[in-house]
Amino acid sequence: MKAKIYVTPKKAVLDPQGKAVANALHGLGYAAVGDVHIGKYMEIELKATDQAAAKKQLDEMCHRILSNPVIEDYRFELEG
Amino acid sequence: MKAKIYVTPKKAVLDPQGKAVANALHGLGYAAVGDVHIGKYMEIELKATDQAAAKKQLDEMCHRILSNPVIEDYRFELEG
Repeated sequence: MKAKIYVTPKKAVLDPQGKAVANALHGLGYAAVGDVHIGKYMEIELKATDQAAAKKQLDEMCHRILSNPVIEDYRFELEG
Repeated sequence: MKAKIYVTPKKAVLDPQGKAVANALHGLGYAAVGDVHIGKYMEIELKATDQAAAKKQLDEMCHRILSNPVIEDYRFELEG
């Protein structure tokens, strides 16, 4: 099965990368652009058959290595 | 409205970051992990009312600044 993982900065945390991109877009004339938030998107192939076990393992992976839980939130979808 | 943008490395392009994460996960004992692909996830607030115009502008933004079309693919969803 395939997991899609989204890691985003927590709302309370400063997002300098997002601010920089917003400024760059304004500078190019895209005045309609408001807040920009930038995170990570990961696709992981999993050789697993048990959906519940795969979810548990993914949650552990996200917490331990794929995100920094102090400043980031994560969510994932499991397909197939 | 709010745009969600996904930027991923093209399939034919080497993804060293994905390989590194896959190796790290294997090293931690997650043997079920296969291929890993790492991209970017962006959320942009748009002060716009015309959905078609917003889509056109977003596509232009993705092509010009938010992705590198030589080595990356992008797709986006528009909400609200």
